[in-house]
Amino acid sequence: MDYDSYFDEALGLLHKERRYRVFITIERDAERFPRAVWHSDEGPRDVVVWCTNDYLGMGRHPQVIDAMVTTAQRMGAGAGGTRNIAGNSAPIVGLERALAELHRKDAALVFTSGYVSNETGIATIAKLLPDCLILSDAQNHNSMIEGVRRSGAEKVIFRHNDLEHLEDLLRQAGKTRPKLIVFESVYSMDGDVSPIHAICDLAERYGAMTYIDEVHAAGLYGARGAGYAEEVDALHRLDVIEATLAKGFGCVGGYIAARRNIIDAVRSHAHGFIFTTALPPAVAAAATASVRHLMESGEERQRHRRQVALTKGALAAAGLPVKPGPTHIVPVMVGDPERAKQASDMLLAEHSIYVQPINYPTVARGTERLRITPTPFHDAAMIEHLTDSLVAVWKALKLPFVDRAAAA
Amino acid sequence: MDYDSYFDEALGLLHKERRYRVFITIERDAERFPRAVWHSDEGPRDVVVWCTNDYLGMGRHPQVIDAMVTTAQRMGAGAGGTRNIAGNSAPIVGLERALAELHRKDAALVFTSGYVSNETGIATIAKLLPDCLILSDAQNHNSMIEGVRRSGAEKVIFRHNDLEHLEDLLRQAGKTRPKLIVFESVYSMDGDVSPIHAICDLAERYGAMTYIDEVHAAGLYGARGAGYAEEVDALHRLDVIEATLAKGFGCVGGYIAARRNIIDAVRSHAHGFIFTTALPPAVAAAATASVRHLMESGEERQRHRRQVALTKGALAAAGLPVKPGPTHIVPVMVGDPERAKQASDMLLAEHSIYVQPINYPTVARGTERLRITPTPFHDAAMIEHLTDSLVAVWKALKLPFVDRAAAA
Repeated sequence: MDYDSYFDEALGLLHKERRYRVFITIERDAERFPRAVWHSDEGPRDVVVWCTNDYLGMGRHPQVIDAMVTTAQRMGAGAGGTRNIAGNSAPIVGLERALAELHRKDAALVFTSGYVSNETGIATIAKLLPDCLILSDAQNHNSMIEGVRRSGAEKVIFRHNDLEHLEDLLRQAGKTRPKLIVFESVYSMDGDVSPIHAICDLAERYGAMTYIDEVHAAGLYGARGAGYAEEVDALHRLDVIEATLAKGFGCVGGYIAARRNIIDAVRSHAHGFIFTTALPPAVAAAATASVRHLMESGEERQRHRRQVALTKGALAAAGLPVKPGPTHIVPVMVGDPERAKQASDMLLAEHSIYVQPINYPTVARGTERLRITPTPFHDAAMIEHLTDSLVAVWKALKLPFVDRAAAA
Repeated sequence: MDYDSYFDEALGLLHKERRYRVFITIERDAERFPRAVWHSDEGPRDVVVWCTNDYLGMGRHPQVIDAMVTTAQRMGAGAGGTRNIAGNSAPIVGLERALAELHRKDAALVFTSGYVSNETGIATIAKLLPDCLILSDAQNHNSMIEGVRRSGAEKVIFRHNDLEHLEDLLRQAGKTRPKLIVFESVYSMDGDVSPIHAICDLAERYGAMTYIDEVHAAGLYGARGAGYAEEVDALHRLDVIEATLAKGFGCVGGYIAARRNIIDAVRSHAHGFIFTTALPPAVAAAATASVRHLMESGEERQRHRRQVALTKGALAAAGLPVKPGPTHIVPVMVGDPERAKQASDMLLAEHSIYVQPINYPTVARGTERLRITPTPFHDAAMIEHLTDSLVAVWKALKLPFVDRAAAA
C-alpha cells in the first residue's frame, strides 16, 4: 500500500487550486500591540497586525496578563484533569459565574474553544429534544455546521437573515415539533448583523428555541460587553448564547450561557465537554479578569468604535472597495484569490502590514477579500499608513478603485 | 412548547440512575503539589489529590511555570487568531518542532486539546484515504470513537488487544483496501498496555496504517519521554502518534506527530484545526519547556515509577483489591456505583483524600472503581495515609478485602 500517494495527491490538489496555505509566524508584543515581530525568511521584522481577532487588545491588558501570571505562579500551568476528575478549579467555576452574570442567564459552561462549544453545544441540545428540527442560517460558521451535523437531527437551512424564508420553514415544521433556530449575531466575514428581535418574534410565534453565536460580538457590543443581543436589548429573549473567550476577551476557550437546566443537561451529556481536560486555572483567571473589566469599562468599546469608523472613513475616502456594514469588521473586496494573496504578500513585504487574505472556502469564490480588524490601539498614524499602503498595492496590482478621483 | 421538560427529564433520569455528577471544586497549589484546597460546603479544606492526570507534576515545575509567565508577560494572554489568521505564534511553531523531535517524526501539529486531536486527526486522515476501513480497539477512548464516527469511513471493532481478532479482520479486508488501525498504548482505566510491535507486524503484513494514542504515556515512558512506543523501541514503526500536553506534560492541548505529508494534509483539511483559535503562546511555551525538560531528565520518570510501585505494594499488602498492571495507574476495584461514590465521599470528608469514583459510562457496569494516580510527589507519609484511609473506608463500607489477614 502506498499511503503517501493519497496525502501527496490531496496536497497537490490544493497547490493546483492555489488554496495551499502557508502560515505567517509572528511574535506578538504585549507592550507594543498591535505591533508584532514577523519571522520572515530573511529574519525578524517589525510589522503592524491588521487582522487580529483580539479585537479590543484585551490579550495585552495588564490586568488580564497579571491574572494569568499570578494564577500560574500559584496553581501551576495546567488544570490536571477533566472537570469531573480533579480539574474543576476554583477559577473556572468563577469564570462561569462571571459569564452567566454577563449574559444575564442562570448559568454558563466553559469549553476548550468556541469551536467546541458550538460543535458540542448544538449537538447535545438538539439530541436532548426528541425529533428536533434545526433551522440554521446559511452563513453560519463551520463549527455550528459541525454541531448541526453531529446532532443527527433533521436540519433545514434558511437563506442568510431571510425572515420570510425562516417563517416558511417554521410554519411547515408545525407548532408541536421541537425546533432549534441556530444563528449568529455578527457574521465575521461580511461584518453584517442578524435581526435578533425579529428572529425571536418568529421563535415565540412558532414555539422554537433560539441558539445565538456571539463569537464576534461578546466583549465588543452592549453596555456591559454582553454582545449584540445586549446592544439591542434582547438578552432575555434568547435561550442559549454561545461565545468565545479568544476574541473580544483576548484569551482562549468558549462557552454557552442559558437556563440552569439546559446548562446542567449539556454539562452531563456532552462528550466533548466530559472527556477533555479543563482549561488551565491561569487561562480561566485571565478570561475572568477580561470579562469583569469589560463589564465595568466602556472605554475600550468606545475607542474601538472610533478607530473602526476612522479606518472605514479613510479607506473609503481613498476609493478602496470597503464593504459597508454596521460592525467593526472592515472587508476590502478583491474578488480574486491570486490577487488577494498578492495584495497580502505585498502589504507584508513592502509595507510591514500583516493582513491575511480570505479566500475560498472561508468565503465564496469571487468574493475574496482582505479582512481588516482595527483595534482601539490602531492609531491615526497606523490608519494613514494602512490607507497609503493599500492604495499603493491597489495601483501596483491594478485593482479597481471605487472612486477613481479620490485615489488619483 | 415546554422545552424545559425535556432537559428536566434528561437530568431526572441521571439522578434516578445515580449517574448525576457533582464536580468537586479545588484550588491547586504549585508549591505544595499534590496538596490542594477543596472548596467544601463548610469552607476551604486542605486535601491531597490522588486522582490527578498531571501524572508527573510537571504543571508545577518551576521551568514550566516560568515559561508560561514570561511568555504571557511578553506576548499577552491569547494567540489573537487562528493559525492561518494572525495566530501562528513563534512559540507554537517551536512546540511543534519539539514534539516532532520527541517522537522522531518529520512534523507535528498542535490542536486545542487531546480530544480534538483524536476527533479531528482520525476523521481527517481516514477521509483522505479512499474507501478506508478503520480497525478500532474495543477499549478506545471516546475521542477516538468520535473521530472514527466523524470520518464517515466503515469501521470494525476488534476485541481489546486481541491480535487474532485483528488479524481476522485485516485478512477479510484484503491487502489492497486502505486500512487504518486505531489503538492506544496505555489504556487509562485499567492501566494495561497494547502489544505495539505485534500490531505493527500485522499492519505491515496486511498493508495497514497505524494510529496510536499515547495520551497516558507521553512524558512518562521511554528514555526521552516519547511514550510507550519509545519504551519498547517502536517509534519508527508507527505512522501517526497522537498525545496530549495536559497529562504527562502538565499543560493543555493535544497533537499528532507523523510524516510531513500526513501532517501537512491534516493541517490543510481538518476543520477542527483550521477554524479555531490557536493555543496561547504562553501555553505553547510552557508545554515546550515541559517536553524539552522531560527529554533531558529521567528523574521525574524514575521517581514516578518508584512511588507508583510503593503505592501498589502498600495497598496490596493491606489486602485492598488493586487491579494488577504494568503502568502507573492504580485501579482499586469496588464493583458498585453507589459504594464507589460512598468510598470517595468518605475519603474526602473524613480523610482529606480526593479520589474521584469512576462509574459507568466511563467503565463497564460492575467494574466501578477508585482510580488512583500516584505522582513523583506523593511521599511515603502520603502513601501510608492513603493506605490506612482506604482500609478504614473498606471496613466502614464492608467492602471485601483480597487478603483478610493483611487487613485485620
